[in-house]
Amino acid sequence: MDTLYSGAFGLKVLSHLRDVEKFCTGCTDCTECRRQYDLNYSRDIAIVWEQPDNLPVMLEEDPLQYLPPVAQFKGVQTVLAINLHQDILLSLPEFCIQAGVKALVVPLEDPLWLQGGARRQVEQKAKGTDLEIVFPKPFCALRENELHPEVNKFIRHFRIGFPLFSIRKMDGVIQEARVVQSSPCGAAYFVARNLAGVLDDEKLHEIVGNRWHNYPCTGSMKMDRELKDTVLHFAGELHREGVDMATSIAEDRRRSADPAVTAMLATVMPVDTAFQRYQAQQPQCRYGDSGICCRICIQGPCQITSSAPKGVCGATAYTIVARNLLRSVLGGTAAHSDHAKHIMLTLKAVVEGRAGKDYGIASPQKLKTVATRMGITTVGREDMDILRELVALCLAEYSRLEDGHLQWVEKTVIAARFRIFQETDILPTSIFDTIATAMSQTHLGMDADPVSLIFKTLEAALADFAGMHVGTDLSDILFGVSAPVYTEANLGVIDEHKVNIAVHGHNPLLSELIVMAARDLDNEAREAGAAGIQLMGVCCTGNEVLMRQGVPLATNFMSQELPIMTGALDVMVVDVQCIMPSVQAVAECFKTKIVTTSRNARIPGSHFVDFTTKQALEKAKEIIHLAIASYQERLGSPCFIPAVKKQVVAGFSLEALYELFAALNPDRTYAVGVRL
Amino acid sequence: MDTLYSGAFGLKVLSHLRDVEKFCTGCTDCTECRRQYDLNYSRDIAIVWEQPDNLPVMLEEDPLQYLPPVAQFKGVQTVLAINLHQDILLSLPEFCIQAGVKALVVPLEDPLWLQGGARRQVEQKAKGTDLEIVFPKPFCALRENELHPEVNKFIRHFRIGFPLFSIRKMDGVIQEARVVQSSPCGAAYFVARNLAGVLDDEKLHEIVGNRWHNYPCTGSMKMDRELKDTVLHFAGELHREGVDMATSIAEDRRRSADPAVTAMLATVMPVDTAFQRYQAQQPQCRYGDSGICCRICIQGPCQITSSAPKGVCGATAYTIVARNLLRSVLGGTAAHSDHAKHIMLTLKAVVEGRAGKDYGIASPQKLKTVATRMGITTVGREDMDILRELVALCLAEYSRLEDGHLQWVEKTVIAARFRIFQETDILPTSIFDTIATAMSQTHLGMDADPVSLIFKTLEAALADFAGMHVGTDLSDILFGVSAPVYTEANLGVIDEHKVNIAVHGHNPLLSELIVMAARDLDNEAREAGAAGIQLMGVCCTGNEVLMRQGVPLATNFMSQELPIMTGALDVMVVDVQCIMPSVQAVAECFKTKIVTTSRNARIPGSHFVDFTTKQALEKAKEIIHLAIASYQERLGSPCFIPAVKKQVVAGFSLEALYELFAALNPDRTYAVGVRL
Ligand code: SF4
Ligand code: SF4
Ligand code: SF4
Ligand code: SF4
Repeated sequence: MDTLYSGAFGLKVLSHLRDVEKFCTGCTDCTECRRQYDLNYSRDIAIVWEQPDNLPVMLEEDPLQYLPPVAQFKGVQTVLAINLHQDILLSLPEFCIQAGVKALVVPLEDPLWLQGGARRQVEQKAKGTDLEIVFPKPFCALRENELHPEVNKFIRHFRIGFPLFSIRKMDGVIQEARVVQSSPCGAAYFVARNLAGVLDDEKLHEIVGNRWHNYPCTGSMKMDRELKDTVLHFAGELHREGVDMATSIAEDRRRSADPAVTAMLATVMPVDTAFQRYQAQQPQCRYGDSGICCRICIQGPCQITSSAPKGVCGATAYTIVARNLLRSVLGGTAAHSDHAKHIMLTLKAVVEGRAGKDYGIASPQKLKTVATRMGITTVGREDMDILRELVALCLAEYSRLEDGHLQWVEKTVIAARFRIFQETDILPTSIFDTIATAMSQTHLGMDADPVSLIFKTLEAALADFAGMHVGTDLSDILFGVSAPVYTEANLGVIDEHKVNIAVHGHNPLLSELIVMAARDLDNEAREAGAAGIQLMGVCCTGNEVLMRQGVPLATNFMSQELPIMTGALDVMVVDVQCIMPSVQAVAECFKTKIVTTSRNARIPGSHFVDFTTKQALEKAKEIIHLAIASYQERLGSPCFIPAVKKQVVAGFSLEALYELFAALNPDRTYAVGVRL
Repeated sequence: MDTLYSGAFGLKVLSHLRDVEKFCTGCTDCTECRRQYDLNYSRDIAIVWEQPDNLPVMLEEDPLQYLPPVAQFKGVQTVLAINLHQDILLSLPEFCIQAGVKALVVPLEDPLWLQGGARRQVEQKAKGTDLEIVFPKPFCALRENELHPEVNKFIRHFRIGFPLFSIRKMDGVIQEARVVQSSPCGAAYFVARNLAGVLDDEKLHEIVGNRWHNYPCTGSMKMDRELKDTVLHFAGELHREGVDMATSIAEDRRRSADPAVTAMLATVMPVDTAFQRYQAQQPQCRYGDSGICCRICIQGPCQITSSAPKGVCGATAYTIVARNLLRSVLGGTAAHSDHAKHIMLTLKAVVEGRAGKDYGIASPQKLKTVATRMGITTVGREDMDILRELVALCLAEYSRLEDGHLQWVEKTVIAARFRIFQETDILPTSIFDTIATAMSQTHLGMDADPVSLIFKTLEAALADFAGMHVGTDLSDILFGVSAPVYTEANLGVIDEHKVNIAVHGHNPLLSELIVMAARDLDNEAREAGAAGIQLMGVCCTGNEVLMRQGVPLATNFMSQELPIMTGALDVMVVDVQCIMPSVQAVAECFKTKIVTTSRNARIPGSHFVDFTTKQALEKAKEIIHLAIASYQERLGSPCFIPAVKKQVVAGFSLEALYELFAALNPDRTYAVGVRL
């Protein structure tokens, strides 16, 4: 952007955009509230030109001679012209067109700045060209509008124009107000800074008005014929409207909708949780946030800015965003399919008689359903024989390198959809092939075409889908298909007087065995003085044992640290994925032991049990013993368990739903758009 | 860090660290030179306390009552105490120890600040504790020193203390001076800003001294007994020493050591190259640069700072750096092995009779050597038969999912090294398995243990090694083993009067065919008025055709845009890897056509030839025809080809070296530490 200006208002806008320290003099007790936004646009302002004070009323010579040479405007998207001499303004459209500028923003803060006729003349000069010109009166009246896409970009990029806020309320009281888009003079920050603690009632308008007035606004106090109001008063209305919009959509919200979580967060905590760490990370980097920072090669980090619109290698924002997106998707694809691979290799061990006695085919029915769907004959065959063929197919789904595509995609979607995947050439050859070739395709100097990268991202998504589907199908074969179960959920399931064990992560291979072991060893816990063993789940492992075994769910990903903070959790066993490394730091403040069980998901300081399926039950029992010992250690330590839990019914597998539908209406069971 | 201070010097240091706009008033024509460093430490300063002016000479009550409460200092690493009341200073060590502060920095800018006896008293108070106390006199005399590791961290983090510079010279003239570590008042920036253009001779000292003096330094002009000098004069010496250190290690360096490149860069360019884009990207983000920004999940970006020492999930700097490193390595592993996969699949097609007439076994000898090394019997077998078994082994190297490890690692390193790989459990099962499982291991909530992540990185490196080795072995089988060839290199190989074609990228599959096609079609080029076809290589594809075909090398990765900028290049054919997307933008300013040939490495706007090995020669000829047409179009357009080229001998394969050694000394050919 370029700024051409004269006078105090222009300087204020500029100081705001450049984040000049102490440019805002609103509060006597300045807390530098704007720091948290980290919005310094200095690098995005290409030229600043201040109009000399002493220009004659009529410019005799070419008005453009006063401006910097047009060559300097090369690459500039928007020119912001504040309170310029009328003759300069009249020449500006032509100048902008010549320079390839896309938008000209001429804010009017005073009825005397560029009155009606002159404004039309300026507009006239750009007629029939692509140059967009807007005359917001006042500047904080500038809103996005489909008529001027380039001006919209300007508004979005610099986050100025009509003041927009994001507000969090609790019990009708504003807890926090953040500026989403500021009035160009910066007043919105001052307004927002003073809103915390204010009641959202009829007096809010007056309070906003007062605060805004104290900023102070430099809008003119003269009556404006167009606005039928003074610019000053009108600007105040705009700020009230902005706050109104935000409060009306701000539902009463705490940091979490979960009453057990809010109860825990209200306690004095000995160590930070994700809720505090998230605050501490604010404001987050806007380059990373919008995906326009590339760190794919060590020539970077390259940030896309208006003064550096390409990375060192020449990658544009589109390429960089698409590559980053694809790599993010690959992270998920790899994690999901790695998890499914463990299930698959366990079934392979079952087939080969190496899995030990703790694993076998729990659902021969599901085995046949899956095999049939995948085109494997089942009639007259032994279960083990069918499983052998199914496992071989699964192996190929991971390892095929050419000729062919994922069967789990072809056989689980409707034909029309499959044809679209074929026609758009996004069928993965195999899961690991897609992961590896996509990592390659996103590397320095590989694919620069965002469209082709997005199609590869779709391919990666299909590989992810297949991996998850394989994992689900095989888990059902190995552990059984879930049917509706009644149980409980939330932190209230923790029982101070029991040995409390949480299973957390994603993989049922271990957690199913923990359930078995806990049943076996309940007596030992009672002998140790406890009222029994209380198992509970967290995150997706929680869901696995919830739906198959009716084990209560303690909490979810975001609040995984809180069960430990109750002081009553004896062991948290984690497997893979979504394990915040912080659980260890939290556990160290209480008597909880964190047990890690996977070689590729360790946490320094945790108790590591090298889990192998061969000694599964044995390892599970080892963990229960650890929990009983841990229980005995914590006896007498203070606990705080929020008394919040709910009854839940879980376990609605597709099979369970079919049964339900069939029971309701035996003549017409529902056909879902899936080939079975 | 916390800062406790009184007076102007403290304010100056603070303003410097916080990057307060216009705090430096050195130049009348301020170019905001400090902006480029992007060093705003506001977030890293926890507390600032300014000592009131009106303290009595002796404090009657507890001096600590003046300070903020000790609880606020929790988590603070370093306290910087500038010009404080002596009684407060005397209590400060105890206070710091209580707060868990690790270092106390007390700069002395005046002989009167904390004289000898009092200083020893302050030191005494920390005796036997871990608190480090330093009294730099003046502050810009503070250097890193192994006696105070915590103070070193402070120096490194805030980049203040003894002034350090990085200087680039050319022909004895300073081209650029950057501050690596500034004097705490910020003077180093002012000194550096004014050094460009200055001759590095005996007058440099005087110039530095003058510049520094004009900053101005606020050091005392009183004689200091310890320094045997005034603080002011001594500080000047420190700055001269800093510049001296930098100039003495600054060799005469241009942007490139290559005279052809510097000649091109001196021309007027219609569009930016990597050399300019690199400048435009300065300063690069220091979070990304040091690896402490995590964007692995969308809770991020998380930056590690002293006020936010963990990511939202609780990942520490160690975890984040290790994950980022592993993912970087995976990018390279994937790219290299993807390239080798194409060669492997081509050989598979050869075995299966699907490769068409353009590919076959060029080196049966190499085939046998590789097969023997990999444990495949060769005696009495047909070449095709051996190749079939070798290709099957290669496929397994990519797709094995359990039980086994990379044969290309086991069979190409000495036994002792292999044992170390085994013992440290870093042998990859297969290349793609390692890529996928490592992507999984680095995901949110997976491995938090930096050590385990680094070992997985070593595994990824072995997978990379194997992929590259497979690629090299198979390329030799397919295209022949290189033997020494004489040819030429550098931009001077471009011949204005010929049809100039550059092959660029990594993969010999296409480029070898281009060489064939160019020989076939040389006549057509002559008929079109050219003096023939001039092929040349860029980057690694360049190396492939250089070593096997003696095709001259035009330039390398960094300067890949420059052959196009000569105006005489007709076509640049690119395959995969290291293709800067910018080549297209550059080509659009000249008459060059960019031909992309790989579906996973496209560039919008380029001419895409969908290269398949089945129609290889045909596609290669299509490209040569395009080049001839392009040549005819550019006739008469201006060219600038730097007259720089060198004779080179290339093609030193291991086999060629053995032959050489054997010729020199037939009795004792060299045994290298590789099993053949
Ligand atoms: S590396 Fe990129 S995302 Fe991370 S802080 Fe720097 S600019 Fe932001
Ligand atoms: S790949 Fe390109 S944009 Fe990304 S870091 Fe490297 S040079 Fe920068
Ligand atoms: S030394 Fe740098 S920051 Fe200071 S006045 Fe000069 S240009 Fe500006
Ligand atoms: S993985 Fe952790 S540190 Fe990384 S972005 Fe996510 S929350 Fe932040």
